[in-house]
Amino acid sequence: MTDFWKTSISQVRPNEITVRGYAIDDLVRNTSFGDVVYMLLTGELPRGREGKLVEAILISCCEHSLASPSVDAVRFVASCGVPLQTAVAAGVSAIGEVHGGAIEPCAKILKDAVAENKSAAQVLTELKAARQRLPGYGHPLHTADPRAAVLLAMAGEWELSGAHTAFARELEAASEAVLGRHLPMNVDCAVAALMCDMNIESALGKAFFIIGRAPGYVAHAHEQMTCERPFKAAAFDKITYTGPEQRSVPER
Amino acid sequence: MTDFWKTSISQVRPNEITVRGYAIDDLVRNTSFGDVVYMLLTGELPRGREGKLVEAILISCCEHSLASPSVDAVRFVASCGVPLQTAVAAGVSAIGEVHGGAIEPCAKILKDAVAENKSAAQVLTELKAARQRLPGYGHPLHTADPRAAVLLAMAGEWELSGAHTAFARELEAASEAVLGRHLPMNVDCAVAALMCDMNIESALGKAFFIIGRAPGYVAHAHEQMTCERPFKAAAFDKITYTGPEQRSVPER
Amino acid sequence: MTDFWKTSISQVRPNEITVRGYAIDDLVRNTSFGDVVYMLLTGELPRGREGKLVEAILISCCEHSLASPSVDAVRFVASCGVPLQTAVAAGVSAIGEVHGGAIEPCAKILKDAVAENKSAAQVLTELKAARQRLPGYGHPLHTADPRAAVLLAMAGEWELSGAHTAFARELEAASEAVLGRHLPMNVDCAVAALMCDMNIESALGKAFFIIGRAPGYVAHAHEQMTCERPFKAAAFDKITYTGPEQRSVPER
Amino acid sequence: MTDFWKTSISQVRPNEITVRGYAIDDLVRNTSFGDVVYMLLTGELPRGREGKLVEAILISCCEHSLASPSVDAVRFVASCGVPLQTAVAAGVSAIGEVHGGAIEPCAKILKDAVAENKSAAQVLTELKAARQRLPGYGHPLHTADPRAAVLLAMAGEWELSGAHTAFARELEAASEAVLGRHLPMNVDCAVAALMCDMNIESALGKAFFIIGRAPGYVAHAHEQMTCERPFKAAAFDKITYTGPEQRSVPER
Repeated sequence: MTDFWKTSISQVRPNEITVRGYAIDDLVRNTSFGDVVYMLLTGELPRGREGKLVEAILISCCEHSLASPSVDAVRFVASCGVPLQTAVAAGVSAIGEVHGGAIEPCAKILKDAVAENKSAAQVLTELKAARQRLPGYGHPLHTADPRAAVLLAMAGEWELSGAHTAFARELEAASEAVLGRHLPMNVDCAVAALMCDMNIESALGKAFFIIGRAPGYVAHAHEQMTCERPFKAAAFDKITYTGPEQRSVPER
Repeated sequence: MTDFWKTSISQVRPNEITVRGYAIDDLVRNTSFGDVVYMLLTGELPRGREGKLVEAILISCCEHSLASPSVDAVRFVASCGVPLQTAVAAGVSAIGEVHGGAIEPCAKILKDAVAENKSAAQVLTELKAARQRLPGYGHPLHTADPRAAVLLAMAGEWELSGAHTAFARELEAASEAVLGRHLPMNVDCAVAALMCDMNIESALGKAFFIIGRAPGYVAHAHEQMTCERPFKAAAFDKITYTGPEQRSVPER
Repeated sequence: MTDFWKTSISQVRPNEITVRGYAIDDLVRNTSFGDVVYMLLTGELPRGREGKLVEAILISCCEHSLASPSVDAVRFVASCGVPLQTAVAAGVSAIGEVHGGAIEPCAKILKDAVAENKSAAQVLTELKAARQRLPGYGHPLHTADPRAAVLLAMAGEWELSGAHTAFARELEAASEAVLGRHLPMNVDCAVAALMCDMNIESALGKAFFIIGRAPGYVAHAHEQMTCERPFKAAAFDKITYTGPEQRSVPER
Repeated sequence: MTDFWKTSISQVRPNEITVRGYAIDDLVRNTSFGDVVYMLLTGELPRGREGKLVEAILISCCEHSLASPSVDAVRFVASCGVPLQTAVAAGVSAIGEVHGGAIEPCAKILKDAVAENKSAAQVLTELKAARQRLPGYGHPLHTADPRAAVLLAMAGEWELSGAHTAFARELEAASEAVLGRHLPMNVDCAVAALMCDMNIESALGKAFFIIGRAPGYVAHAHEQMTCERPFKAAAFDKITYTGPEQRSVPER
């Protein structure tokens, strides 16, 4: 069973914990949580203000009230008499393709386009021809996503936005002409563009949402457990039943 | 179904997200992730350096390599061809009574003792009489937990440690005399003492571990998915079978 | 790492799988699913009709529509673009102390009472004095739980009900006199009594609910994924916000 | 919020639970668990022996010892001081693309081939050209999967195998000629073929594994909690660390 247990992430020995080679107390003293997240995702501590930008992204993802399926899942599970971590885990498990899941495909589109020197119109035309949606643009609620705006502004001020962010803006600008309606960037696109500019792998797109939303899930689980009655469920007389009418098991 | 959906945590309206009353872009611009975690747990932004201490705690919890049951769970689940969030959720769900779970009962002991003005010897004597263990002290691996040491040091420098931290130290000092062996504080106790001194509810003890370890779980899930072969499982010839010998289903 | 991997439950070798000593194909040919569940929970195949009673219990637990927090959790998670198993796992994780969780404490009360030869009045009086509720009795919706009735009837016909079931009935009969209101047995109590009479450990109380409800979770996840729109969440204008009014992050 | 809560699966009213129109006590009395699973997956009770075949499939999936990533995940999580359902949920969540996940794509191949009247050689040649693997064939451990054999035999005896099962056998027979090596059917293929012959949707492929393995997860969680020590984790000195050497956080 050689190398059954193997990792490059951290090492533990008696009275010693090192992460990517750094002693845990050195990290606690001399880095921010954003730095550590950046390092865990990429392998190295940031050289510039990437840790600050990572924190900004995490904060932007921290809450979206009950207007979020994962938060609703947390509330129902938390009402069942389970420990805190069980309710939070249900929320994390719900960060799926349509809930935070646009970051990864959006990042892939940006990365490919920048690498291959494509124009925004070209990318949109190709998506249109393939009848595919542009991930990271448009939002059922926010026509001007306040999270996208502030993240791009901060990244600009900290000189961390680059070619991918620029291309993301071009996609928005070209959307009306090519697709027939203006598609504003949402927070998923902002995160995608910035993670590309910070050289973080697209496959880690959901990581920001998972880590950033975790304290929100904790707060909702705790509020449910302490301020609401147990056994949160739809009332039987509010449920629309659309199945077969009452019948008997046939003799067989 | 009046008030079926109700929360004091955040509010969402078109192009507007506020958390505890603060606009999301204001939070992104003017607070740290530690500040936001503190606010989500307590309802208010910190007035002093509590946000920095919260970040220090989160960093101290971020990794413990494969010598951690929850990380091992993440690795096995991540090897099965599941999305990132599914593997991370398995890790979060494993933060149980014996894995990060000592923070809460330790905080309760500290809070009660300080509130009732008990001495360390008194508390230890009572626990001994009740044949109960002292949660947050001792560690299978770390006789001098580097995380406890650095957290208490930072809290001291930032003038955030108070009566509960002092009492936690007294418990350690009194352990040999009362219990017959020296019990060093571990990271759970340090977190417990500091959350009491920061006025965070003991029921939220696991929150620091959940939020702080989340990026570690992400890193392990990603490493498993990208650097290891799928289907991580014990090899059949390494498993000790201790059940009944081979037999046939009896006729009935 | 001797005995790190150890189990008495089953053994796997090339082209061979045995469970509790029985070859998997022997089990498939000569037992029912109820038999196998009984065996996995107790270690031995039933000698009588326990397998049939286990199946009856599983069927009785299979569905309770959306009037169930765990099913609601399944629906929200399933709406997020996740695989089937992720949504089902969220449902399983929600089988907590107030949702299927009464079986275990109810079984303990029945077991202790029968072992110590207590009367129903005695047990109820003790619970009343300790200001504890009687788990497994009463239901927010069902004053005559159809699941309890049919399970007890079947167990009677199959001659599988014994002292614990009899005692469970006595508790119901005595409830009005001692507690001041009639407390009808619910499905949790019926399962608890029958598992005691079948000699299954009380700690496995939730197992029947977990296994029996699993196909219900699958059906709900599949219906959500195929018949409903993605991203099921509370509408923002149906959410009652009870937190602080809008404010600005103070300078610090 | 009209129709926010809507389902065709079951209906709950005071003292009444109906599933697909059948009263719960009618189901408990007159159907088997296999019948109910079939009904929950397809909407209707079986007319023939499909319920028996469903039970056979569930039994065949019930256990594979610790040589299974999902079972290992259950054991690690169960060692952390969590409730039973939390550990079982971790196992369910791990039924991913490479662990039970071959049933669905295998079923799709069988369905398409039968619908389009393709030959086995044709299907294998196309897969080879697309450099895709044949899901449901071959196994790291079982060259003759005992589960596949018994399921196909039972289905034959019960006259439930049809065109899809026949085609699945043809694929095995043609594998050596087209692909250069004999690929034996494994349990995933047997389940896939039989679910197609029973007219169950391929998207429900994992359902059999989820439901059938649930009692196995319960048994492993319970064994871990009652027979093993808490905090199961890799020993620190058995872990191979492959990351950077010890270093200090640079001044920034």
